[in-house]
Amino acid sequence: MSSVVRIIGIDPGLQRTGWGVVDATGNRLSFVACGTITSTAADELAPRLVELYDGLVAVIAAHAPDEAAVEHTFVNTNPTATLKLGQARGIALLVPAKAGLTVAEYAPNAVKKAIVGAGHADKTQIQHMVRILLPKAVWTGADAADALAIAICHAHHRGSAARMLRLAGS
Amino acid sequence: MSSVVRIIGIDPGLQRTGWGVVDATGNRLSFVACGTITSTAADELAPRLVELYDGLVAVIAAHAPDEAAVEHTFVNTNPTATLKLGQARGIALLVPAKAGLTVAEYAPNAVKKAIVGAGHADKTQIQHMVRILLPKAVWTGADAADALAIAICHAHHRGSAARMLRLAGS
Repeated sequence: MSSVVRIIGIDPGLQRTGWGVVDATGNRLSFVACGTITSTAADELAPRLVELYDGLVAVIAAHAPDEAAVEHTFVNTNPTATLKLGQARGIALLVPAKAGLTVAEYAPNAVKKAIVGAGHADKTQIQHMVRILLPKAVWTGADAADALAIAICHAHHRGSAARMLRLAGS
Repeated sequence: MSSVVRIIGIDPGLQRTGWGVVDATGNRLSFVACGTITSTAADELAPRLVELYDGLVAVIAAHAPDEAAVEHTFVNTNPTATLKLGQARGIALLVPAKAGLTVAEYAPNAVKKAIVGAGHADKTQIQHMVRILLPKAVWTGADAADALAIAICHAHHRGSAARMLRLAGS
């Protein structure tokens, strides 16, 4: 019997950071929890980053994941938006790493491909497949669903990596 | 007699984050310390952000600044570089805010104007003026000198703000 690996997926954003936790037992996945951490738009940037930091620290303390996966994306439209996202993403990478977790990064296309089987799926398709793969999952925002998709993507990739290691005889 | 306010200036970067601490007593400035926090280029992004985080936590613990100032800049050339900078900048804003400091942000032109009197000074002019304003300062890298310039900029701006408050009778 395979051991359980608990994975947290994080979809970073300054306004809303989605998170989703799943348990992976071999090829089987089960939903643990998901949610969204928001920061107060009226606040200055630094206290907003503290809100994200404190929120993620609390989520990791509550659910004790073993591994983390963060979406690797940037905003093409303008550098100000990319910088803003980068700042939130810095926190999303920092917190699990500080907690001793390995942190994997996946491009949006890799996440889509792992979930829907194609790199160009839309948000509705992603959410549909997350519902099928994790029937017990309930979410209120798209960011939490995206975070679950990132966690599922990591479960698939780490499974493949483990299989490859077994095939290689290690 | 004016009370002393200790200011930390931070010039964020993933490879090298410069920091500089100055004491501001009314209009007088004195050098306290400066340095550079580096992250291991061969490492993954998340552990590199932990290196910056731990380094900044140690600097703030050692020098106990009252206020922080961080340069607000982005890389125009490509979104990947801007995202990378944003991630380091997220840590540079988070750490002093977590320590309870107010964190001010200044555009590079504001820093140059505060130091040299013009928004288009080059790095040599900046370092020359930092040497004049803080004769006891010794630095080994340009990032530490830039961080001292940011701290000086904040000392000037907070002084003006305090004078304005006094003029307004508050």
